[in-house]
Amino acid sequence: MKKLALNKAFTLIEPGPLALVTTADGGRRNVMTISWMMVMDFTPRFAMLTGPWNYSCNALLKTRECVIALPGAELLRAAVRVGTCSGRETDKFARFGLTPLPARLVKAPLIKECIANIECRVVDHIKDHDIFVLDAVAAWTDGKPVAGRMVHAVGDGTFVLDGRRVNHRRLMSPRLPPGL
Amino acid sequence: MKKLALNKAFTLIEPGPLALVTTADGGRRNVMTISWMMVMDFTPRFAMLTGPWNYSCNALLKTRECVIALPGAELLRAAVRVGTCSGRETDKFARFGLTPLPARLVKAPLIKECIANIECRVVDHIKDHDIFVLDAVAAWTDGKPVAGRMVHAVGDGTFVLDGRRVNHRRLMSPRLPPGL
Repeated sequence: MKKLALNKAFTLIEPGPLALVTTADGGRRNVMTISWMMVMDFTPRFAMLTGPWNYSCNALLKTRECVIALPGAELLRAAVRVGTCSGRETDKFARFGLTPLPARLVKAPLIKECIANIECRVVDHIKDHDIFVLDAVAAWTDGKPVAGRMVHAVGDGTFVLDGRRVNHRRLMSPRLPPGL
Repeated sequence: MKKLALNKAFTLIEPGPLALVTTADGGRRNVMTISWMMVMDFTPRFAMLTGPWNYSCNALLKTRECVIALPGAELLRAAVRVGTCSGRETDKFARFGLTPLPARLVKAPLIKECIANIECRVVDHIKDHDIFVLDAVAAWTDGKPVAGRMVHAVGDGTFVLDGRRVNHRRLMSPRLPPGL
């Protein structure tokens, strides 16, 4: 995997991709499927909505760490299946052919088959609204441009794959953060 | 425009589209471009990140209403330009050829040229994190399926248009909300 500069990590979440989120509670790793997530800052900081109905929520609260891993189209079927069972009963990595790799700064694993991975720390938990506030501490890609290869959940059981890219960098230049 | 059942409105935001958000403060309408937004519940409830750096933030706080309007590919250039100037100096509807239409339940206008519009009320403001919590109260589309026609911001001045749709409804059926 290739390191992605942290100031570019928000560009992995801004397009609204379907994500796999890994945790490691002691020796017990787990992964859940989430698309309720948004960018909060270029720092980069993200918001993610999950609660006690997800088995991973306890591990998140306890370890205050996770990895956001982005599946490409070829991993969509596995991502859907990850989202339809619980880590309470299953080692989802083994069951769905996902390879855990050690992360650099957190104990939660990266997923080898994903097109990008972001190591995150929980910096706040807005309990009233089930929002976890995450700061990215390291980011990785498979070495190819990630935009254009993401998957988006519609929420009704259908998904949309990334299509054509459009470049408006000149038009947006007054509002782009420096160094992007 | 065609009414969309409220229990389906979250499917307009779950894919992570670029959005235009309109407000109306007294007689003064405005529109901003936002992609920092996520679903919070099927009810449907959304989170949106914006703060005092956006001119619309004051109108949101004061009126506690807005409309989330989704541009299709043909409106992307206008959406980018909306995001690079301020309503403080400009009537962005007139300047960028956007047609405001009266909404049903809020004073903020719908945008005729958009592929979908969601009327929202502000139900909470998480001030520490600049998060507005919005409840949808009415939703509209142009009558055609919206998924497959959205635009996603990458954040670096490039955008990705929706591509191919993939149906995993059977695989996801245990986790789909009823009536979707």
